[in-house]
Amino acid sequence: MRLIRPILNLYEQLRRLPGVGSKSALRLAYHIIDMPAEDVRALADAIITAKERARYCSMCYNFTDSEKCEICANPARDQSTICVVEQPQDAAAMERSMSYTGFYHVLHGSLSPLDGVGPNDLRIKELLQRLDGVTEIILATNSDVEGEATAVYLAQLLKPMGLKVSRIAHGLPVGGDLEYADEITLSRALENRREM
Amino acid sequence: MRLIRPILNLYEQLRRLPGVGSKSALRLAYHIIDMPAEDVRALADAIITAKERARYCSMCYNFTDSEKCEICANPARDQSTICVVEQPQDAAAMERSMSYTGFYHVLHGSLSPLDGVGPNDLRIKELLQRLDGVTEIILATNSDVEGEATAVYLAQLLKPMGLKVSRIAHGLPVGGDLEYADEITLSRALENRREM
Repeated sequence: MRLIRPILNLYEQLRRLPGVGSKSALRLAYHIIDMPAEDVRALADAIITAKERARYCSMCYNFTDSEKCEICANPARDQSTICVVEQPQDAAAMERSMSYTGFYHVLHGSLSPLDGVGPNDLRIKELLQRLDGVTEIILATNSDVEGEATAVYLAQLLKPMGLKVSRIAHGLPVGGDLEYADEITLSRALENRREM
Repeated sequence: MRLIRPILNLYEQLRRLPGVGSKSALRLAYHIIDMPAEDVRALADAIITAKERARYCSMCYNFTDSEKCEICANPARDQSTICVVEQPQDAAAMERSMSYTGFYHVLHGSLSPLDGVGPNDLRIKELLQRLDGVTEIILATNSDVEGEATAVYLAQLLKPMGLKVSRIAHGLPVGGDLEYADEITLSRALENRREM
């Protein structure tokens, strides 16, 4: 049984989304068809509106719907520190920890020569243009190969400018069981041990 | 950091979809905003179009974009057999097995008194209206409590009409390891054993 054209088309569009396999795409497609018409319209509208309204903050390149994002527009934040992250989600995660009061800078990716992503494809130039009054850069890129490479690249670029450049700590997650920690995390946790 | 309104709205719409948790909804929302505008438009269009165009086949209540679905409109199919399934996906799965040549009937659910789903909420009346020339009904509802209850209900309804009513077999999946089979499947596999 071939899927009818409109369902097939929806299925194909959904399959292109990250984390949506062929089974979930089909399940979602059937679910959407079974939804009340006004809910379907609301979903489609939300997609279009988010794309139309969301734009980059002119300072940190996080998403915003005005010129500056909520954080960059907040005079109470610590103006001397910038935390560099790969994606807007990462800044959101940092904010949830409620232990950081400085600014952010969203690179929108990490260096990945194999995928053809070089320094010019990230918001690195824009970071260099906003260093007035900044004394510390915290590199909070991911701990995968690309994230580490990006951190090393940025450190080499920023340290000669007289900035303090730090990297967030890697180690055992709080509440995590030693027994289940992977080898690399454990070796990092040992390496970064602190005297008590 | 609060999500800006359009992203929050998209996130909330996506969260309502089945199998989309809060983390995937956020990931999908950010992904959609990062997609090229024409792809976003195509996705939203596919959603609207599928909802607008897909309608129920007047015979079997599977989805179609014309009056009768491809299968009901095919004179080469075996007119004497109807396979009753819960959802359109189930008919699609049966078709993929390429071992069934009769018609289907999609109930759009299963009997579930606890959720307030009774016989009148399923396409049972419509099944009874298309039994002319039919000799066998194959009940291919799921093997969960609701699916079994639906099969028993339909069997009691259809057998007095002189129809042959059968239930698809349950047992070990082909290629499945005995060791990993759950108890209920194993007990069904034993129960339904066949002489060799």
